Amino acid sequence: MATLTNITDLAAYAAELGTAANAASRQLTLANGDQKNHWLRRTAELLRLRTADLIAANEADIARAPDYGLSPAAVDRLKLTPARLEQIARATEEIAQLPNPIGEVIDSNIRPNGLQVLRVRVPLGVVFFIYESRPNVTVDAAALCVKSGDPVILRGGKEALHSNQALHAVLQEALVDCNLPPAAVQLVETTDRAVVGHLLKLRDQIAVTIPRGGKSLIERVVAEATMPVIKHYDGICHVYVDRTANIDMATDIIINSKCQRVGVCNAAESLLVHRAMADEFLPVAAKALQAEGVELRGCERTQQLVPGTQRATEDDYRTEYLALKLSVRVVDDLDQAIDHIETYGSHHTDVIVTNDFASAQGFQTAVDSAAVLVNASTRFNDGGELGLGAEIGISTDKFHARGPCGLRELTSYKYVVTGNGQIRQ
Amino acid sequence: MATLTNITDLAAYAAELGTAANAASRQLTLANGDQKNHWLRRTAELLRLRTADLIAANEADIARAPDYGLSPAAVDRLKLTPARLEQIARATEEIAQLPNPIGEVIDSNIRPNGLQVLRVRVPLGVVFFIYESRPNVTVDAAALCVKSGDPVILRGGKEALHSNQALHAVLQEALVDCNLPPAAVQLVETTDRAVVGHLLKLRDQIAVTIPRGGKSLIERVVAEATMPVIKHYDGICHVYVDRTANIDMATDIIINSKCQRVGVCNAAESLLVHRAMADEFLPVAAKALQAEGVELRGCERTQQLVPGTQRATEDDYRTEYLALKLSVRVVDDLDQAIDHIETYGSHHTDVIVTNDFASAQGFQTAVDSAAVLVNASTRFNDGGELGLGAEIGISTDKFHARGPCGLRELTSYKYVVTGNGQIRQ
Repeated sequence: MATLTNITDLAAYAAELGTAANAASRQLTLANGDQKNHWLRRTAELLRLRTADLIAANEADIARAPDYGLSPAAVDRLKLTPARLEQIARATEEIAQLPNPIGEVIDSNIRPNGLQVLRVRVPLGVVFFIYESRPNVTVDAAALCVKSGDPVILRGGKEALHSNQALHAVLQEALVDCNLPPAAVQLVETTDRAVVGHLLKLRDQIAVTIPRGGKSLIERVVAEATMPVIKHYDGICHVYVDRTANIDMATDIIINSKCQRVGVCNAAESLLVHRAMADEFLPVAAKALQAEGVELRGCERTQQLVPGTQRATEDDYRTEYLALKLSVRVVDDLDQAIDHIETYGSHHTDVIVTNDFASAQGFQTAVDSAAVLVNASTRFNDGGELGLGAEIGISTDKFHARGPCGLRELTSYKYVVTGNGQIRQ
Repeated sequence: MATLTNITDLAAYAAELGTAANAASRQLTLANGDQKNHWLRRTAELLRLRTADLIAANEADIARAPDYGLSPAAVDRLKLTPARLEQIARATEEIAQLPNPIGEVIDSNIRPNGLQVLRVRVPLGVVFFIYESRPNVTVDAAALCVKSGDPVILRGGKEALHSNQALHAVLQEALVDCNLPPAAVQLVETTDRAVVGHLLKLRDQIAVTIPRGGKSLIERVVAEATMPVIKHYDGICHVYVDRTANIDMATDIIINSKCQRVGVCNAAESLLVHRAMADEFLPVAAKALQAEGVELRGCERTQQLVPGTQRATEDDYRTEYLALKLSVRVVDDLDQAIDHIETYGSHHTDVIVTNDFASAQGFQTAVDSAAVLVNASTRFNDGGELGLGAEIGISTDKFHARGPCGLRELTSYKYVVTGNGQIRQ
C-alpha cells in the first residue's frame, strides 16, 4: 500500500487504487454472507482491542484541528472516545445482523417455452466514497459496501487523516484475518485534492461515486465524474397542516420536524397552513416554536396572526436554513400547498397533517418527493427509521436510488436463465 | 409547436422542449392506467385510419434516401407499408395490455412505532430518446414512456424526419383525444445535430437520456450529457460448451445463437469448448456452422480439429462481428472459460451448455453479465423473451437498469409513509 510520502504521481496512484479494487471485486462477489459477517464482527472486535491506538491517532488529528480552523462543534464531531468507538463497533455488528442482499431473487417467471427467468441481486461494483471529517463514517461506509460485495475507495477529510488511517488499518487487518482481499477497502492516503479528479476519470474501474458533504463538493464531483454519481442535494422539507388537522398533533410534528435535530437534511424548513386552520393553529404553533428558539418568517397573513414575525421573501421559501429558522405560509387549500411544495421544495421529504382521507391520498399521490408522509415527522426519512438498516447517504436523485441508500441501493442485478435446450424461433 | 422553418435559436428551442415536457410531467404522473391505455388504443386506431397519409410521408423520406447514401437494407428498414403499420398498431395495443407500472407497491413494512412504510413505483421523469432511422421505434418509444408516466422528447434519424413527423402527428392527435398533454410526446423538428448538445445540457429538465444506435453516437452522448444516460454498448456474447454437454443441444444452441439473427447485440460472437469435449464436438459444430455460412477463427487446437480454420488473434476475441464470423477457443476447464469471458466479454449475454449441476451453478454465479443462461440460446436476452414486454433498449450498465429496459426500468419510486402522529425520539 502506498504511503503519504511516496505518492508523487497522482494519476498513477489513482489508477493503482482502481486496478486493485477491481481485482478484489470478483473475490468479494463470490464471498458468502457468513464470510462477510465474520469480517464485520472481527472488525468490531478489533475496534475494541485497538482502542488505545485509535485514540492516539485521533489525538494527532485533534492537535492539528486549529491549523484547519475547525469550529469547536467540528472538533467534537472529529473526536473519538472509548464510548464512540464502542458505538462504531456496535453499528458494525448491527450491519452483520442485516440480511445478505447478494443472491436475493428479486422476481422470477417461467416463460411459455419453459425457460425459468430469475432476476438476481448482485454487487454493483467499485464504490468511490468521498466524505468529510466524522471518522465513524469511515467504518460505516466500508461495512455497507463490503456487505454488498462492493470494494470501496474511501476519501475522507484531511482533518481526519490520521484517524482514518488507523481505522483503515483495523479494517484491513480484519480483511486479512477473514481471507478477504485487502483491496476490498482502500483509503486514499494523500490529502492532495487533485487525486479526486484522477479517480473521477476511472469510469471503467469505478461503478459509482458517492459524495457526502456540502453542495460545492457535490457540484464539483458531478462536473468532473465520468461515472454515475449518487447525489445528495438540499432538503427543503415542508409540513403542511390541512384544515382537518389535529392541532396538538400538528404542533408536535412541526416542533419535532424543525427542532429535534436542526442541522440535518430531513429537518423541516417550511410550514404551510390551510387558511381555515390558520387562526386557531398558527398562534399556538408559533408560541411553541418560539419557546424552542425558532425564528419565524411568514407571509402577510402569518404576520397578522403572529405579531412581530418578519416577512418571508421568495428566497426564504427556497432556503435550507439548517438553523432555528422556519418559513411560514398560509395557503388557500391543498392544491396551493402542493403547488408551493412542487415550486419551492427540493423533492426530499414532505408531510401533511390531516384527518381527511382524500387530502391524505391526494397529497401522497401528487407530491413528488423521496418521502411523502401523513401525520408523522419529516425526521423519519432515514434509512434506520424506514427499515433499511444503516445508510451510506440519502439520494435526491430519481435514477437508481431515491431517498436513503442502504445495502440494497449498493447492488445491481442480473438475469439468470435456465433452460433445457431452448432456441429462439 | 415549433416547425422546421422557424427553428433558428437552437438553445432556446431545446429549452422550450424541456420546459413543455416538464409541464406535461405532473399531469402524466396523475393520469390513471385506463387513460394511458385509452391513448395507446386510440393511437393504434389512428395509425390504421391515417395509413395513406403515413405512407405518403414515408415516401418523401424514401425518395430522399439516396441523398443520404442509405444502403438497400437501410432503405428497407426505413420503409412503411400497410402491413408494417398494422404491426406497429398491434405492438401499441400489446403495450396497453401490460400492467400499469405506476403505483405498484414494490415493498412495504410496518415499523415498530406503527409507521406504515410503502415503497411505491412512480414515473422517472422526462426521457430524451435518440435513435436512428426505423420509424416503428418512434411509436414504440412513445408508447413505453407515456405508459410509464414519462414525457418523452424524440430525436429520430434525419432520414426518417417526414415519417416521424407524420407519426408524431398521430401520437399528438391521440393525446388530445384522450385529454392528455400534447407535450407528453415531442419530436425534435430540426435535423441540426447541434440541438442534441443543447438538450444534453438540460439536467434539471431531463431525467435520463437513452441513445440507441452505434458506439460513436453513444460515446458522444455520454461525453456531453449532464444527466444520467442508459447506455447500450457491445454484445460480445459467448457460448461455452462444458465437458458434459449434450452435443446435439450444444450444436442447436450455437447455431441459433450465431445465426438466427446475425446483426443483433445478443447474437453469439465466441464459442468456448471444454478440451475433453473438443474432439467430439468441434468437428460436428464446425460442419453445421459452415453449412450456415459462418467463418470460424480459432485457437491452435481448433485449427487441428477443424482444418482450414483461420487463426484467431487477441482482437478476434474482443470483436463484436455482427456478421457470419465466430471466434473459437478450446479451454482447459470451467474456470478458464469464466476467465476468458470476464477478460474478453462485454458482460452482455453468456451461455453454458452443460449437464453438470456444479458447472451450471458455478457459471451462473461467477459470470458477471446482464443475462447468464444455462442450456438456452443467447438470443433470449430480450425484453419480450424474458417476460418484460416491449423494451426501449438493452442496458450494458449495472446502474439503475441492466439488460432489457421495459416499463419498469422507466420508473423510479418514492417512500409513502403513513402514521398517526409519530415523532422521532
